[in-house]
Amino acid sequence: MSQIDQIHPEEKKTALIPPNLENDTFLRACFRQATDYTPVWLMRQAGRYLPEYCATRAVAGSFMGLATNVDFATQVTLQPLDRYKLDAAILFSDILTVPDAMGLGLTFSQGEGPVFAKSVRSEAAVAELCVPDMNKLRYVFDAVSSIKRALNGRVPLIGFSGSPWTLGCYMVEGAGSDDYRHVKSLMYSRPDLMHKILAINADSVAEYLNEQIRAGAQAVMIFDSWGGVLADGAFQEFSLAYTARVLSKLQRSFEGVQIPRIVFTKGGGIWLKEMGQLDCEVLGLDWTMNLGLARELVGGGLGTPGKALQGNIDPNVLFSSPHQIAEQVRRVLESFGSPHLDKTRSGPTHIFNLGHGISQYTPPEHVSALVDAVHEHSSKMRQI
Amino acid sequence: MSQIDQIHPEEKKTALIPPNLENDTFLRACFRQATDYTPVWLMRQAGRYLPEYCATRAVAGSFMGLATNVDFATQVTLQPLDRYKLDAAILFSDILTVPDAMGLGLTFSQGEGPVFAKSVRSEAAVAELCVPDMNKLRYVFDAVSSIKRALNGRVPLIGFSGSPWTLGCYMVEGAGSDDYRHVKSLMYSRPDLMHKILAINADSVAEYLNEQIRAGAQAVMIFDSWGGVLADGAFQEFSLAYTARVLSKLQRSFEGVQIPRIVFTKGGGIWLKEMGQLDCEVLGLDWTMNLGLARELVGGGLGTPGKALQGNIDPNVLFSSPHQIAEQVRRVLESFGSPHLDKTRSGPTHIFNLGHGISQYTPPEHVSALVDAVHEHSSKMRQI
Repeated sequence: MSQIDQIHPEEKKTALIPPNLENDTFLRACFRQATDYTPVWLMRQAGRYLPEYCATRAVAGSFMGLATNVDFATQVTLQPLDRYKLDAAILFSDILTVPDAMGLGLTFSQGEGPVFAKSVRSEAAVAELCVPDMNKLRYVFDAVSSIKRALNGRVPLIGFSGSPWTLGCYMVEGAGSDDYRHVKSLMYSRPDLMHKILAINADSVAEYLNEQIRAGAQAVMIFDSWGGVLADGAFQEFSLAYTARVLSKLQRSFEGVQIPRIVFTKGGGIWLKEMGQLDCEVLGLDWTMNLGLARELVGGGLGTPGKALQGNIDPNVLFSSPHQIAEQVRRVLESFGSPHLDKTRSGPTHIFNLGHGISQYTPPEHVSALVDAVHEHSSKMRQI
Repeated sequence: MSQIDQIHPEEKKTALIPPNLENDTFLRACFRQATDYTPVWLMRQAGRYLPEYCATRAVAGSFMGLATNVDFATQVTLQPLDRYKLDAAILFSDILTVPDAMGLGLTFSQGEGPVFAKSVRSEAAVAELCVPDMNKLRYVFDAVSSIKRALNGRVPLIGFSGSPWTLGCYMVEGAGSDDYRHVKSLMYSRPDLMHKILAINADSVAEYLNEQIRAGAQAVMIFDSWGGVLADGAFQEFSLAYTARVLSKLQRSFEGVQIPRIVFTKGGGIWLKEMGQLDCEVLGLDWTMNLGLARELVGGGLGTPGKALQGNIDPNVLFSSPHQIAEQVRRVLESFGSPHLDKTRSGPTHIFNLGHGISQYTPPEHVSALVDAVHEHSSKMRQI
């Protein structure tokens, strides 16, 4: 164990990196340790662009049929790892499992995305909400355990949840939205009710992620997919504050190993400095943010605190040729700049990812081009 | 004419503010002159939330029937001015008139937004594109002249166009989009074709705005509604560069009076410093950007150059109560900070607006609450 495997004095007996991992590059980068190359995984890497995923989903019958069945969830989580040299696995599930467990009745209509049977727009509906019994989400924790076993130490497993605000958007709108009219109407006209929903969501998300950690998740990520639709001021009050509340309730380690926490707000680049104050290890960025600028703002220096950065290529790059994909990968890697090479100290690190989920129309062979280009070019950047 | 009515040495004989305007507050704020209150107008202020608009549209039969008829266009442009104490009028039209005049065949399907008969995705389709004959857009210029006459000096008239990139999005997608897959595929895989489209669009937009200026528009605005969907790097190359190209071709004055130019990129706050380099007077901002920070970055000082700032309340605020609307108006005004009061020098100014177009579901009486609150509170802020 190197000297930087221990950074929190109060947690002297926890390791940063779990033993017995074949590939710990992703976790090292989360903790801002020097790595031999830039690790890469892709948001929604197990998904509809893969024919083998579609085949499993056809057998499962529906999205929730897939997500609630431990064997199917395990199978689809591992599918992209069998095709691509990805450096992390992410639990196959949906961000809306938590409001579903609250009794809102989640279904996925074909081609139209998630729909709830009940939406939460009135004082009475808010009064009925509470932190769900985690047993209703047992299928998720069982999936985590099963995937962890199936991975058998190949790469680390990331657990995840939607952010309190993002869950709140769906709960109030009752479905996806393009103007967020209902949730923002509630927020502006009944901020008290909105705060109640968000407090319950934050406590639910914290319990949910802690259970995932206890089931074996080696890192956790909070997806604030709709934080970026908020006005300045409202973002801080209704999204960021509740993400911080979740973070404050997460357990920092499990079985002697620390659990890094990633926060991703789509459209959050504009508030990056404030996000830099969050008690988490990694900040995810969408493609609008310049990684070099992000590194300056929150990446920290060699031996000084900062966040690891995750992102941020435009998923639409995957529709160009393998040669062009490699070129854009290079641009993103170089926008972050020189990786730090000092194995004795922490410093700025980059975890390569898309700036948002992969498109269902992505040609699967183009994903290989991306993953391989990340590994090749980032290795070269380390040969000085 | 005060000393700051003349700022460009090479244009000594042009005035900043046209004579014979009953209310020139908006134009003064565009040129960073002190005003007695913060002027306000609303993006899409003539629109479906107004019953009188719906009545006119019903007579016209369709959106294009409305936009192409000079009398109807004049009537609906003036409707919101009769209800609210707005400080500017904006031409009633659509950003897609230019690609329609290029022969792409624009229609508005009920509830689904604009659709083009032809989309531009191939080398052959790009080869066919050219700057349209401005006579095909005569109905727009005639509407400008007619509205100008009807306004009779009450408030200034703003002309507008979509940005080259935003027009390009619709031209390649053939309609609205939620992932911009086609236009980004073209951009990443055939940047040469994308650049050809954008160059033609920029030259078309410049001619189009110049014709609006010659027809009587007293300010012009470029709507880069989809600039914010681009990745860092791509935004500068495919959106900002072509907005700059339009600006470089715009005539600076007409009949001895200068024409201020406003650029609005939805989601552009993250690139505000770079947008501050544009050769325009005003930058529009959406609600995600803190106005105080924007002022620091590009607002300039007293007697030093900078941009006037326009924006940026979340249109969804209009769904809360009049009291709450006034409260949020106050927040936005105060986020900009103290207005400058020096009538002999230019300095930071704020033009109040929404951060995006008004929702069709807005209660019309709530708009009065907003407009009145802007005038009242901003007047108070000037009484020190």
